[in-house]
Amino acid sequence: MKRRAIYPGSFDPITNGHIDIIRRSLKVFDEVVVVVAMNLRKSSQKSGWFSPEERIELVRKVFRGEKRVRVDLCEGLIMDYARSHKVDAVLRGLRAASDFESEFMMAAINRELNEKVETVFMMTGKNLFFVSSTVLKEVAAFGGSIQAYVPRPVWLAVKKKLQLGELR
Amino acid sequence: MKRRAIYPGSFDPITNGHIDIIRRSLKVFDEVVVVVAMNLRKSSQKSGWFSPEERIELVRKVFRGEKRVRVDLCEGLIMDYARSHKVDAVLRGLRAASDFESEFMMAAINRELNEKVETVFMMTGKNLFFVSSTVLKEVAAFGGSIQAYVPRPVWLAVKKKLQLGELR
Amino acid sequence: MKRRAIYPGSFDPITNGHIDIIRRSLKVFDEVVVVVAMNLRKSSQKSGWFSPEERIELVRKVFRGEKRVRVDLCEGLIMDYARSHKVDAVLRGLRAASDFESEFMMAAINRELNEKVETVFMMTGKNLFFVSSTVLKEVAAFGGSIQAYVPRPVWLAVKKKLQLGELR
Amino acid sequence: MKRRAIYPGSFDPITNGHIDIIRRSLKVFDEVVVVVAMNLRKSSQKSGWFSPEERIELVRKVFRGEKRVRVDLCEGLIMDYARSHKVDAVLRGLRAASDFESEFMMAAINRELNEKVETVFMMTGKNLFFVSSTVLKEVAAFGGSIQAYVPRPVWLAVKKKLQLGELR
Amino acid sequence: MKRRAIYPGSFDPITNGHIDIIRRSLKVFDEVVVVVAMNLRKSSQKSGWFSPEERIELVRKVFRGEKRVRVDLCEGLIMDYARSHKVDAVLRGLRAASDFESEFMMAAINRELNEKVETVFMMTGKNLFFVSSTVLKEVAAFGGSIQAYVPRPVWLAVKKKLQLGELR
Amino acid sequence: MKRRAIYPGSFDPITNGHIDIIRRSLKVFDEVVVVVAMNLRKSSQKSGWFSPEERIELVRKVFRGEKRVRVDLCEGLIMDYARSHKVDAVLRGLRAASDFESEFMMAAINRELNEKVETVFMMTGKNLFFVSSTVLKEVAAFGGSIQAYVPRPVWLAVKKKLQLGELR
Repeated sequence: MKRRAIYPGSFDPITNGHIDIIRRSLKVFDEVVVVVAMNLRKSSQKSGWFSPEERIELVRKVFRGEKRVRVDLCEGLIMDYARSHKVDAVLRGLRAASDFESEFMMAAINRELNEKVETVFMMTGKNLFFVSSTVLKEVAAFGGSIQAYVPRPVWLAVKKKLQLGELR
Repeated sequence: MKRRAIYPGSFDPITNGHIDIIRRSLKVFDEVVVVVAMNLRKSSQKSGWFSPEERIELVRKVFRGEKRVRVDLCEGLIMDYARSHKVDAVLRGLRAASDFESEFMMAAINRELNEKVETVFMMTGKNLFFVSSTVLKEVAAFGGSIQAYVPRPVWLAVKKKLQLGELR
Repeated sequence: MKRRAIYPGSFDPITNGHIDIIRRSLKVFDEVVVVVAMNLRKSSQKSGWFSPEERIELVRKVFRGEKRVRVDLCEGLIMDYARSHKVDAVLRGLRAASDFESEFMMAAINRELNEKVETVFMMTGKNLFFVSSTVLKEVAAFGGSIQAYVPRPVWLAVKKKLQLGELR
Repeated sequence: MKRRAIYPGSFDPITNGHIDIIRRSLKVFDEVVVVVAMNLRKSSQKSGWFSPEERIELVRKVFRGEKRVRVDLCEGLIMDYARSHKVDAVLRGLRAASDFESEFMMAAINRELNEKVETVFMMTGKNLFFVSSTVLKEVAAFGGSIQAYVPRPVWLAVKKKLQLGELR
Repeated sequence: MKRRAIYPGSFDPITNGHIDIIRRSLKVFDEVVVVVAMNLRKSSQKSGWFSPEERIELVRKVFRGEKRVRVDLCEGLIMDYARSHKVDAVLRGLRAASDFESEFMMAAINRELNEKVETVFMMTGKNLFFVSSTVLKEVAAFGGSIQAYVPRPVWLAVKKKLQLGELR
Repeated sequence: MKRRAIYPGSFDPITNGHIDIIRRSLKVFDEVVVVVAMNLRKSSQKSGWFSPEERIELVRKVFRGEKRVRVDLCEGLIMDYARSHKVDAVLRGLRAASDFESEFMMAAINRELNEKVETVFMMTGKNLFFVSSTVLKEVAAFGGSIQAYVPRPVWLAVKKKLQLGELR
């Protein structure tokens, strides 16, 4: 039986922490769909760097040639997406105990909305637990280099935006 | 590709919380092996109710007829067991944020010991998050009924032990 | 001696989680006043669905006929309200460990401001711990049904607002 | 209506932290019964200083003349005690977020065992959050003075035990 | 060897909690530089009361005559500031477990950016753990007195701003 | 002014995590004394591998030639030791949020016992946060190699004890 998981998030932009989770999840799932989601809790509070289309394009570049990783956009409820796309599981990374409770609540309500889909969690790699899009944006915005924490296509795109003064 | 997960724990005895995790994990894995482990951290501090053989027998009774759930004993390191039994993932239930950190550390060291096997986590069902073997033992030891929180074979075995005065 | 508690919050809108806390608190208190507060910490960051007057009206509908539950508005400091309304205790619900610390700090400073009033906490019911106004608003905004988590008058009001396109 | 709460614990011995909770709870309850419990989770792991009878005697001395505070012994399940003694609420102090989750689980299972009795929590006073019987015993065992953190009768009893070499 | 620490923060305004940390840190460091930082994570979300220049002026007034405490402004990355100012350590106060994880992540990324500088933490004093600039602003905004939690120059400046209607 | 810190713990045995904290602390302190303590909270619950004398000897071997690191034994209260040895600070490593609260309480009571000495905390290195003496002992006891997480003299001593069957 083929198992498909979705990995929802804002991915603004995708980091090495996300990539680590995706690669490791391929030991458990046959296919992983990176879902750039518009409706994750709190996402609206985050200032955007990249448009949804740009985020998708960056994920696509990173996983070019890897047939088991796809990328998609979701503009509604994640659990509605899961229902209409034959998804077996929602994948979420846990970086810290502070993530735990909001993830626990979200997993509980998602299960209420669609009890056929399970949420499974993986812990981020030990070298990457402190890498979040939010922290990286701040470091970059103040002139620090984030090259070590993002894949090459992201680093190039960030550098370009910084040079054009498009990032705050 | 067939995916096999192991679900290690002390299972002294198996509770409805464990059973909920196992059933839901079958949506993600093709086979789940319940591994009664002798070496989980802190397990030595817990006072035992059932012998490892009795625990295995109770798990077997509960999943009689369910071919995708097996039960086994592990007397050494879980990650050595995983290596020699073609395991894709270690499954762990998370009941609360306080579980998170010790699980995070254990997952990290397990990955050091065997990086081919991933640890995946599932949250316990909302009605069962407060059900642990430890709490149930205490409730039973002081005369409370735990019938609602354990499968029938466990309840019968506990009642018998209580009548014989074998549980403290 | 009659005991009166206030239960402050934003109640935008009142959920089944709030109602569970209020009903259970009536075993401890003779009267509970639901206080729609303008000045709770962080409340300003939440996007409002209902006006304070609408929130009060919804609470009133839910507890129509229940004489021991009243509803009021507080535009200043909760502890000043408590002082001028002969309040014995502030009631707060705890849903998760992450609530704990901000509540602990708030209870500490409230006690500094008015040491005659104690803050007492009750844990949310096991089926409702994941129900918060914030989560429900997001689910509803993306087309999910929240009917199971709010009282009927709230569900009718939300549906009407959604149809009029007033909720974002 | 008269409200009676029980305040269960090991009280080995009663500290100023406990006393602070009890005094403040009298603003909410008409009567508080300090229940020296034999069956609290983990209590068996704690090395005892005082016998249950001595603990009760010390509580009695501290609240001599205070008619609204009583003391009792409970050798079974707290919720059975609550049922047979017309109790409205179980009172528990919260010192830290780490207390939260085990208390949350215990409150949930207690509510399953007896849904007529609510558990209410109060935060410990800001000067006393670090005062636990366990810490005080260790400080005293290594020659530190705990006079500032326990009531006078307890301090006298501890000093006597220390001189007789009865405390380890 | 002379040791210099920087104590970065938004200090909008400096509170008695900050002052407690600074005074106690002088037992460990020879010089402490209070750094009013523009780029701390989340700081951008906080509504400002005082301009950076006003914040610096208030810190200066509080530590007038104390030669080992200086104050400065940092508009870029803290770790770049540390590099160019011969700093041995970054000092951070911890008020609660909820602070822990974001501080842990920040310390980890700061060490990546500049491994010569260590972050050291001190716990806030027991009477001040609930005192944060954010809470104090809210209390003041709703008419409560914060005189007990801030140094005199800050109290005078706040009162003046309140009278002029400049604080929201 | 020369600053001296003590770093108390059970060190049974010293791990690479401890060594990382000690080396980094030398950027802040002139001298660090590793104090093998008999009275740390909970230490009595841990099953010992090495005698205090053996632990001291292992620390000495690891820091041979490093004049700024010394090792000592403390059989009483750490704060009494600090008083009689001209100590400026107590150094503690934080590995996780779960460490935070017990450390916070211990720091608070230590400050009551001796307010001249401050407790400062450092976070463990990102690659070592999951390395604790307790976990390593369990891994070793079940046949796993801990060579990567302890210094060479400790590894040799553990191997010898394992061969002699002295470790359980």
